Amino acid sequence: MKPVNIGILGLGTVGSGTARVLQDNAQEISRRLGRDIHIAAVCHRSEEKARQICPDAVFVQDPFALVARDDVDVVVELFGGTGVAKEAVIKAIEHGKHVVTANKKLLAEYGNEIFPLAEQKNVMVQFEAAVAGGIPIIKALREGLAANNIRSIAGIINGTSNFILTEMREKGSNFADVLQKAQELGYAEADPTFDIEGHDAGHKITIMSALAFGTPVSFESCYLEGISKLESRDIKYAEELGYRVKLLGITRKTDKGIELRVHPTLIPECRLLANVNGVMNAVRVDADMVGETLYYGAGAGALPTASAVVADIIDIGRLITAGTGNRVPHLAFQPSQVKAQPMLPMDDITSSYYLRVQAQDEPGVLGRIANLLAQEGVSIEALIQKGVIDGTLAEIVILTHSTIEKNVKTAMNAIQALKEVKSPIVMIRMESLNGQNG
Amino acid sequence: MKPVNIGILGLGTVGSGTARVLQDNAQEISRRLGRDIHIAAVCHRSEEKARQICPDAVFVQDPFALVARDDVDVVVELFGGTGVAKEAVIKAIEHGKHVVTANKKLLAEYGNEIFPLAEQKNVMVQFEAAVAGGIPIIKALREGLAANNIRSIAGIINGTSNFILTEMREKGSNFADVLQKAQELGYAEADPTFDIEGHDAGHKITIMSALAFGTPVSFESCYLEGISKLESRDIKYAEELGYRVKLLGITRKTDKGIELRVHPTLIPECRLLANVNGVMNAVRVDADMVGETLYYGAGAGALPTASAVVADIIDIGRLITAGTGNRVPHLAFQPSQVKAQPMLPMDDITSSYYLRVQAQDEPGVLGRIANLLAQEGVSIEALIQKGVIDGTLAEIVILTHSTIEKNVKTAMNAIQALKEVKSPIVMIRMESLNGQNG
Repeated sequence: MKPVNIGILGLGTVGSGTARVLQDNAQEISRRLGRDIHIAAVCHRSEEKARQICPDAVFVQDPFALVARDDVDVVVELFGGTGVAKEAVIKAIEHGKHVVTANKKLLAEYGNEIFPLAEQKNVMVQFEAAVAGGIPIIKALREGLAANNIRSIAGIINGTSNFILTEMREKGSNFADVLQKAQELGYAEADPTFDIEGHDAGHKITIMSALAFGTPVSFESCYLEGISKLESRDIKYAEELGYRVKLLGITRKTDKGIELRVHPTLIPECRLLANVNGVMNAVRVDADMVGETLYYGAGAGALPTASAVVADIIDIGRLITAGTGNRVPHLAFQPSQVKAQPMLPMDDITSSYYLRVQAQDEPGVLGRIANLLAQEGVSIEALIQKGVIDGTLAEIVILTHSTIEKNVKTAMNAIQALKEVKSPIVMIRMESLNGQNG
Repeated sequence: MKPVNIGILGLGTVGSGTARVLQDNAQEISRRLGRDIHIAAVCHRSEEKARQICPDAVFVQDPFALVARDDVDVVVELFGGTGVAKEAVIKAIEHGKHVVTANKKLLAEYGNEIFPLAEQKNVMVQFEAAVAGGIPIIKALREGLAANNIRSIAGIINGTSNFILTEMREKGSNFADVLQKAQELGYAEADPTFDIEGHDAGHKITIMSALAFGTPVSFESCYLEGISKLESRDIKYAEELGYRVKLLGITRKTDKGIELRVHPTLIPECRLLANVNGVMNAVRVDADMVGETLYYGAGAGALPTASAVVADIIDIGRLITAGTGNRVPHLAFQPSQVKAQPMLPMDDITSSYYLRVQAQDEPGVLGRIANLLAQEGVSIEALIQKGVIDGTLAEIVILTHSTIEKNVKTAMNAIQALKEVKSPIVMIRMESLNGQNG
């Protein structure tokens, strides 16, 4: 089947990330989509960079020429801003092209021009990447929660601000020092105004508000208050009272109208949103039938944002392919690509382990247990001896490092056979949920 | 435009919930879908109950007659189990009907029969409600994360077990006592085996594993270990070491094969999953481009599950309507239904407030401040006096109950005007994120 041909406008952070996702995951994407995605044309200010990143694409100097090309089915607008980006998106729609964009400013400020035009031309304008990066929150609001009256949305939707607030809380540092650190780490721009004064979060909550309540976008009604005036003492006092301070985008339907606002906000520390730290984003939606749902993940960065851009291209490709039949393959991958893979028996899985051993409280027992674990290559992360039972039995609790389950079981059998060990050993598996082995 | 006509098989908890969502939110659903959803026919063992819940539907005694009806476009299978439900789903597909089902057991055990048949007939089989109730996790896995190689999934996907583990930790109670409490509260069945021994979680992680890795469903390979043998002392020891114990469904792609398992698991207490308590569910997905994302919400219950069932019906309805044009309305609602609503000025929003006042440390100041708040109808939830600065200035920190912002601002102006108050008052808004006013 012929590929979905896309034209990319802009190869900055997100544009380069999109090219990389399409290249690195080409096979997995085709397995899901049933056809390839081909970068047919690309427009960037540096022709050299464009040819390096997209060697198989036609380089096009003029964005208005790119959006008119017959070999482009989908225009992927990653210029950002509301100048050329806006004109190019409008031209693309007028040429009957589907559009994918990560441009929150464009949609929050000019959505009321763009969407009616797209409607009139019967084309898709997909914008999952515009809000909360790689978190599929647009899909959740437009589709997953479509049976609900949505009541409110509250989101941590600016990673820079959340990083700064997290550091201010954890280290007690003041705003200016943490901002400088964020800039050194690349989490904040040289001119951070857009992030720290709430404009970026304002664009995002404006878009979500329209999706939730079926209203036009109205960024001009959004109250914006950033974090630059926050003092660390207030973060400390809030914590003493059981609260964390987060920059939230909030929108809520009330009997009198819609609230739409961005400002620093105290949240009870027991809430999940209060525990979203560093550059991570999370969006909490309250809806009448499903109640509270929450969506968490990376809100920025080249690859997470590109993950959303490419998901939108796949969405368009699947619809073009489906007609009115089955759009999304039942098992996510095209039927011909659903392939059995070896299923690991439990002996071969990798995990860490919690072991509790009841043994007679005699010298040398701990050493014998540790040796039996070591013989199977199982290393110990932590070992504590808990209280003695009946005056003679000690409880020994062990956390192991990550290992193969059969090694732990072999060691457990040997430990169980020790004459000092009196009851069945308790074993519970452990997951760090940290990074890519999570 | 003519409605989407559905036939419902089964009016138990989820079936009744589905009828209620369709009725209560009929207007909001039509605004999103562009047509109505009409319950054309219903099959239930009690005709009386069927006529009461779905007064406008044709009552059909025989499920095989219902799935053959010309006036049914979509069959909604909510019988559960793998007897009649399985045969009825197969017959529905053979009749060319789209199917929506909440039946995890059916799909985890017989998906390899059902999906190829659906593929052959080019019909949709939608099953968002089968995994994690109202959380749109199937949509995230099949669509939102489609650009990624998924590396692993770990989920709290059985609310009964999570409720029991939460109680065991918080109260130090033993398993049997908490199970009895859960049964009294209706969180556990009279025969709780299916939930507490991991079968239910096993069905759900089996389905997610297939979607993540592009494999057939293989429930027979899923390792199942429940929570009935867990002792509260192990939960306590784990906590001392910085861990929480959760029943996790885990699937992971490794070089040697796929891990697929359900068992009690220690998780570091700082992870979001470790803080998912009570009957709530959450699923963590680790994928190569987007990194870690997490989805949280109600995993069971009539209305949350019905929210997912109805979202699936809307999905089908939108595809039938769209052809190859724009499937999902850009702003979630049909363009004709996008309506401006009054946007509340900040003076009219409702919030709670944190106020910090620096005032001379003199008798009567606290009382004057409290009176000025009371005059505007602002009531105080907490008030603490923090340390004295320069020997003369006290810092007074106040948390208010929920109120209208203009009242707080009026009171703040009056407080600011007190001669004892020396610096600008700091005001930060506060959200409880609790329940439907969250």
